[in-house]
Amino acid sequence: MSNPKNDLFIRACKRLPVKRTPIWIMRQAGRYLPEYRAVREKYDFLTMCKTPELAAKVTIQPVDILGVDAAILFSDILVIPEAMGMHLELIESKGPVFHQPIRSEDDAKKLKRIDPDKELKFVLDAVELTKKELNGRVPLIGFSGSPWTLLTYMVEGKGSKNFSNVKRMIYNDPALAHSILNKLSDVIADYLSAKICAGADAVQIFDTWGGILSQSDFQEFSLNYITKVISQVKRKDEPIVVFCKGVHFGLVQLTNSGADVIGLDWTMNLEEVRSKIGDRVALQGNLDPTVLYAPVEKIKEETVNVLRSFGKGSGHIFNLGHGILPDIEPEKVKALVRFVKEKSAVFHPNVPETQKV
Amino acid sequence: MSNPKNDLFIRACKRLPVKRTPIWIMRQAGRYLPEYRAVREKYDFLTMCKTPELAAKVTIQPVDILGVDAAILFSDILVIPEAMGMHLELIESKGPVFHQPIRSEDDAKKLKRIDPDKELKFVLDAVELTKKELNGRVPLIGFSGSPWTLLTYMVEGKGSKNFSNVKRMIYNDPALAHSILNKLSDVIADYLSAKICAGADAVQIFDTWGGILSQSDFQEFSLNYITKVISQVKRKDEPIVVFCKGVHFGLVQLTNSGADVIGLDWTMNLEEVRSKIGDRVALQGNLDPTVLYAPVEKIKEETVNVLRSFGKGSGHIFNLGHGILPDIEPEKVKALVRFVKEKSAVFHPNVPETQKV
Repeated sequence: MSNPKNDLFIRACKRLPVKRTPIWIMRQAGRYLPEYRAVREKYDFLTMCKTPELAAKVTIQPVDILGVDAAILFSDILVIPEAMGMHLELIESKGPVFHQPIRSEDDAKKLKRIDPDKELKFVLDAVELTKKELNGRVPLIGFSGSPWTLLTYMVEGKGSKNFSNVKRMIYNDPALAHSILNKLSDVIADYLSAKICAGADAVQIFDTWGGILSQSDFQEFSLNYITKVISQVKRKDEPIVVFCKGVHFGLVQLTNSGADVIGLDWTMNLEEVRSKIGDRVALQGNLDPTVLYAPVEKIKEETVNVLRSFGKGSGHIFNLGHGILPDIEPEKVKALVRFVKEKSAVFHPNVPETQKV
Repeated sequence: MSNPKNDLFIRACKRLPVKRTPIWIMRQAGRYLPEYRAVREKYDFLTMCKTPELAAKVTIQPVDILGVDAAILFSDILVIPEAMGMHLELIESKGPVFHQPIRSEDDAKKLKRIDPDKELKFVLDAVELTKKELNGRVPLIGFSGSPWTLLTYMVEGKGSKNFSNVKRMIYNDPALAHSILNKLSDVIADYLSAKICAGADAVQIFDTWGGILSQSDFQEFSLNYITKVISQVKRKDEPIVVFCKGVHFGLVQLTNSGADVIGLDWTMNLEEVRSKIGDRVALQGNLDPTVLYAPVEKIKEETVNVLRSFGKGSGHIFNLGHGILPDIEPEKVKALVRFVKEKSAVFHPNVPETQKV
C-alpha cells in the first residue's frame, strides 16, 4: 500500500486518532453528477466498467468536485457473475438483468471458476490507473458484493420484491445454495485480494440483501460466507469494511467476522451500536440519503446529529446510510462534505494537526 | 362485542391464559387461495371491497379452508384516500395508482374530511354481514393503514423504491406533512371506531412504511400519529394491534402507544423483544413468509422455532412476519395452521380446556 497524502479514512478505519471525521459517499461516482452523466452519455455502463480510462475518470470526479476523503473504484458488483459466464444486460429502466438465472444444479455447474487476474483484469487495470492518477491524494477503496448478495441477483435474475426464487432455493435445496456460495466466496476473496495487490488501500463488501433474511438464515447463508471471504483476503494492513443493509440484528456477530469497519444504514443509531459493540470495530454511516432532498440548513442539522450520535473519538467514517440517489443536487452534496469537515473537529479534541501513523 | 366461540385470539391479545397459541395470517383472504381467485375472476378488486356480500365471502374463506383463529375483513388500506376524493386505480401488474398524488398545499386542501359512516358505509356493512355469517365462530379483525403509510401512498401515488416524494415533503414542508397526518389520524380513528361499532372484535393498524424512516423521523411522522389514532379510537374492550414493518428500533416506544399487541416482521427475534419490552403488550408474528416455499418438514421445524422463540405463557399470536405471498400452495398454509395447533399446547402448560374470561 502506498501512503496516501490524506490518510484520514484509513486512520479512522483503524480507530487511530484523526483531526476530523473523514467522509466518502456510497455511489459517489454516479448519476447525480453532471460530469458523470457527460461520460455516461457517450458510453454504456458496462463499457465504462471495462475501460480503465473511463472507470478512473469517473472514480476521481467526486474527489475533485466534492473533496471527499476516499475514492471508490467505479464498477459493478455483477462483473463477477458476468465473468463466471452469465450474460448480463443492464437495462436503463429495469436495472441489471440475467436472462438465464441460476435455478438448478445444472445451471450452477456452468459457472466458471475464474481467475480475477485474467477474467477481471480490466478492474485491476482500472485500480492501477486510478491509483496513478490519484497520485496519493486520497485512498482508493475497492469493493465486491457479498456471496449472498451476488447469489440473490444470480438466482432472481433481476430486481425482486419478495426474492421468491432465492428463498425457494435455500429452503428446498440448501446444499445447492451452499455450493454456489462457497464457490462465490473463493472468487470474491481472490478478487478483493487482487484489487489490494493492484493498489486498493481498503475494500468494502456490500451485503445489500442480507436484511431480507431471518436472523438464523442470515447467519447460515450470508454472515458465514462474509467471514470466509474476509479470512481468505490476502492483505497486509488494508482495512475491510462490511456494509449489510437492514441487518440490525447481526451487528455483534458482524464484529466477529474479521471486518475492521461496519457500515450502518440510516435506521440504526450510532450511539446505541457503539455502546453495544464497543470499540472493537470502526463504524461507517449513516445519514438518511433522502436528507439530501432537504434545505442545506436541515442537512447541516442532521449532519451534526450523526456526528454527535457517534460522539467523541476516532473510529467513525461519515457516509450516507445507503447509496446517494440519482436526483440529488450536487450543491447539496458539496454542502454535506463541507459540514462534515467543519463540524467534526470538535469530536476529535487534542489531536495534533499532523498525525501520521 | 359479541362473544366469539373461539376466543383464543382475543384472549392472547389480552395476555390471558390460552390452551394453545392462536394463529391468523396477514393477507389470508388472498390470491394464493383458488377459492379467492374464483371470486376475483368475476369482479375487480375494488368492486370486491365495495360489495359487502363479496367482501364477507372472501373474508370467511380462510376460516373455513385453513381453520385460522381469526378472520380479517377483506378490504384495502387505500379506501380511505379514495373516500377523501383521490381517484384510485388498481392496476394488476403495477399495484395501486393515484394519478393525481398529493404534492402541495393546494392538493391537500382538496382532501375531504369524511364521515366513515357515510363515505365508507360499504366497509361497515361488510363488517356487519361478515359478523352475521361468521356467527361467532372466530373474532373479526378490522384494519387501517397508519397515517404515515397512507400519506406515503398518497404522496408517491404508486409503488416506490426510494420514497423520494414523501421524503421531500417531510424535509421541505414538514408543516404540510403534519397537517395531512393530523387529518388522516382523525379519519382513521373514526374509521376504526366505526368498524368496532359495527362489530369488529379487534383492529390492526398497518404501518407498512414506518421502516423507511430514521429513528427520529419515525417518532415524529409515524409513531406520534399512531399514538394519536389509538387514543381516539372509541372502544370498550377491543384490542388494538400495531404492525410496523422494519421498525426494529421503535419497539419499546411502540409499547407506549396504547397498542395491546405489537406485530413483528421476520427479522426480529421474539425472545429478544419479549425480554426487552417485558409482558406489557402481546406479540404477533413472525414466521418468514417465504418459509412457506419450503417442504412441510422444514415448515414444521421453523414453526416450532417461532413458538419456542416466544416461549411459555400467553401473549403470543402466531402470524407470518408479513403478508402471505400469492404463489404459496394452500396445502402448505394448511400444514402451518395444523402445526401451530399441534405444537403450541406445550407452551401453555396447566391451562384448562375451558378458559373463558
